[in-house]
Amino acid sequence: MVVGGDAGGGLRGPGSAVADTVAPVNANTSTWSPAPTALLTDHYELTMLQAALRDGTALRRSVFEVFSRRLSNGRRYGIVAGTGRFLEGLAQFRFHGERLEFLERTGVVDATTAQWLADFRFSGQIQGYAEGDAWFPNSPILRVDGTFAEACMLETYILSVLNYDSAVASAASRMTSAAGERPCLEMGSRRAHDEAAVAAARAAVIAGFTGTSNLEAGYRYGVKTIGTAAHSFTLLHNDEQSAFRSQLEAQGLGTTLLVDTYDVDAAVRKAVELGGPELGAVRLDSGDLVAQAGRVRDLLDSLGNTKTRITVTSDLDEYAIASLAAAPVDAYGVGTRLVTGSGVPTSSMVYKLVARENSAGELEPVAKKAAGKGSVGGRKTALRRRDAHGVATHEIVGVDTVPVDDGDDRPLMETFVRDGELVDGWTGPAAVERARQRHAATMAELPRAASRLSEGEAVIPTVLVS
Amino acid sequence: MVVGGDAGGGLRGPGSAVADTVAPVNANTSTWSPAPTALLTDHYELTMLQAALRDGTALRRSVFEVFSRRLSNGRRYGIVAGTGRFLEGLAQFRFHGERLEFLERTGVVDATTAQWLADFRFSGQIQGYAEGDAWFPNSPILRVDGTFAEACMLETYILSVLNYDSAVASAASRMTSAAGERPCLEMGSRRAHDEAAVAAARAAVIAGFTGTSNLEAGYRYGVKTIGTAAHSFTLLHNDEQSAFRSQLEAQGLGTTLLVDTYDVDAAVRKAVELGGPELGAVRLDSGDLVAQAGRVRDLLDSLGNTKTRITVTSDLDEYAIASLAAAPVDAYGVGTRLVTGSGVPTSSMVYKLVARENSAGELEPVAKKAAGKGSVGGRKTALRRRDAHGVATHEIVGVDTVPVDDGDDRPLMETFVRDGELVDGWTGPAAVERARQRHAATMAELPRAASRLSEGEAVIPTVLVS
Repeated sequence: MVVGGDAGGGLRGPGSAVADTVAPVNANTSTWSPAPTALLTDHYELTMLQAALRDGTALRRSVFEVFSRRLSNGRRYGIVAGTGRFLEGLAQFRFHGERLEFLERTGVVDATTAQWLADFRFSGQIQGYAEGDAWFPNSPILRVDGTFAEACMLETYILSVLNYDSAVASAASRMTSAAGERPCLEMGSRRAHDEAAVAAARAAVIAGFTGTSNLEAGYRYGVKTIGTAAHSFTLLHNDEQSAFRSQLEAQGLGTTLLVDTYDVDAAVRKAVELGGPELGAVRLDSGDLVAQAGRVRDLLDSLGNTKTRITVTSDLDEYAIASLAAAPVDAYGVGTRLVTGSGVPTSSMVYKLVARENSAGELEPVAKKAAGKGSVGGRKTALRRRDAHGVATHEIVGVDTVPVDDGDDRPLMETFVRDGELVDGWTGPAAVERARQRHAATMAELPRAASRLSEGEAVIPTVLVS
Repeated sequence: MVVGGDAGGGLRGPGSAVADTVAPVNANTSTWSPAPTALLTDHYELTMLQAALRDGTALRRSVFEVFSRRLSNGRRYGIVAGTGRFLEGLAQFRFHGERLEFLERTGVVDATTAQWLADFRFSGQIQGYAEGDAWFPNSPILRVDGTFAEACMLETYILSVLNYDSAVASAASRMTSAAGERPCLEMGSRRAHDEAAVAAARAAVIAGFTGTSNLEAGYRYGVKTIGTAAHSFTLLHNDEQSAFRSQLEAQGLGTTLLVDTYDVDAAVRKAVELGGPELGAVRLDSGDLVAQAGRVRDLLDSLGNTKTRITVTSDLDEYAIASLAAAPVDAYGVGTRLVTGSGVPTSSMVYKLVARENSAGELEPVAKKAAGKGSVGGRKTALRRRDAHGVATHEIVGVDTVPVDDGDDRPLMETFVRDGELVDGWTGPAAVERARQRHAATMAELPRAASRLSEGEAVIPTVLVS
């Protein structure tokens, strides 16, 4: 598979093929790994650790769970993303060098705790929902079994990764659902923090986007990258004609020409004149896209360019995409609204201690009672109940019990880390491709009402059993 | 200055002092520098480069500017943040090794362009608004003078950094303005992408926050970190009393005890019983904060703990902070709403080519005409017009001219990079402290109406002169 240079959906780029939209994740030879992650956490995780080390409770066996109490903004489902990124970062969650010195020098921890941190290596179990799967209120999205010390310290880092990546994937899934068979392209890097942009590209591809403009995401995760030219390229040249000619010569006839720098109709005529019938696509980035797309399609057809595609890229979200369903548009480029979660810029996932060893050495459920923020104690396991046609009907969450599969159900808890060791297949480019397939399968399994964009209830109810 | 262990505002932490709230940025011995940044960009920057290299326009002298057409959500002003982070990243904006091989292997660039990239080093000029200063519609926030090739390539990275960091700083400034003399503490890491969380902490401190929970921000930028304990620490122990006792022993009487895990009144009584009159603070993280703060204050006072402070931390934003102005609250911990820009998760800054060399070798203004997205061609310079009392009255933007200082004005364009070399003082911990001071001075200079939280017009109008 070739990573092409075509913002028009990857179907016409030089060297690309239709298959690109089906498998936008490539095998990858990158040796990239994240920078040290252990200080991407809150100060209080370490002050709690220190107090617990002193009073002897630090090594109590504990169970922490990631879940959310609600789907924000009346969404029908959420999509899990970020687990692979977290697992990649977990390998770098170590305390040494300047960072450890910083903690001791500034008094965050004392010498005893610093020594403990220097020797720290996560040795517990991590299970949870596969990336790309759907989540609902109270789904046990990730579960960490270990000592209080090791499980507590991961809180902030786990939530940072899952809350952002899942926010983007959840929005992206609504967009690809609204787009139907038309490809969606991720172009939001400039409207997200520079590193968040890479995570957003990864999450978007998991949720069905067919490519991203973000090169670092291509490098790290093997996802298909796309792009041709901006308005500045046209403005750089003496006239639009020179810019189009240069782009066609450098990128081939399959490229996408941006036609709204000056006058759209005139630009389309120039594009066809220079590119001929094989011109790949034109891009519209402003104005009333429904009206413009219709006019440009008519013009292209009247000039004989019936196969030249139309890509639109101005302030799109799932609603705008849905409103363009009847317009002659061939691909959607989505930016700002995607990387900011389309109104939900962060997920509402929390990480809570749900059980811990008591003085007698037994695991005991625990829960806080705080107003509006209470939680359900006990270790959770989940499956998705499905009817005889394979359609999801309930999210079944067992509390201190494993719910029984009635024959058509799908167990949801995968094992990511066993005794501190990463289980193969959940990190790197392979994990992105696996998550993309999981997302597609999950969407096929959810009831049709999942694709409703209007506000409402979760598309399936969560049932807690014990 | 000591980085204390007190979520209660840093005024009572062991070893901390009142001065902490005045100078929350410390000198720092970290040798941290960002990972390679050159691929944190959009594919099309490099396809444009390649086409321009082929057609001979790549080396045309060009001027790109960062600006925004509007203040989102009826805000009265924006705050610039991120410039220092961008400048730190600029030094790592080089193409080599695996990343360069990736670009060539996947066909993003050809061998000629790859060779050009291998030799690339930014050699132009970068000027703009100081971090911490205010920006308004059409303010020339950052201006890059160089060849098209080198200036074009920086687009995505510059915008990623400035759009996110400025979104957080702009929200943070409204929060510290609403909080008045009471300290605001940044605690949002878990609701932002893991690296964005570090940038958010930095931006919050620039806009007047007195500390952050984010340890990596403390390590990289010397900002004060704060934190004591979460609900999980209470739940870990056999009872609340054991947890409080352990925390007081480990962190000292100046610590902040979290009192809403079970029953607030009972917890406050236990806290006072164990901590005595020197107990630093209690923290409320749920419920009706106005009512709770009043009741807890009365209870503390009735128990003789008149100096024990109250920190609140549940879903705060600038509006909630303002509504708590009359409540007996001593410090605000702000999370989700801060790191997501309080309704504006990204700034609307764009990066546009405004002038470039023509065939005759002269610099010529350029601008696109796209519907609703037009721009003003020409190289901009700005100053803030002030009246005889030093109060800002206008943002004066000169288009291809330098506006004349009328005696009370303040020039706004600082020089960050000269002939490719970083100018001292705009990166690292020193830049954060400098930006914090710039923000405080700017806020003192803006009209009082700047602090209005209601939607409205920019607090001063922007006037373009030519």
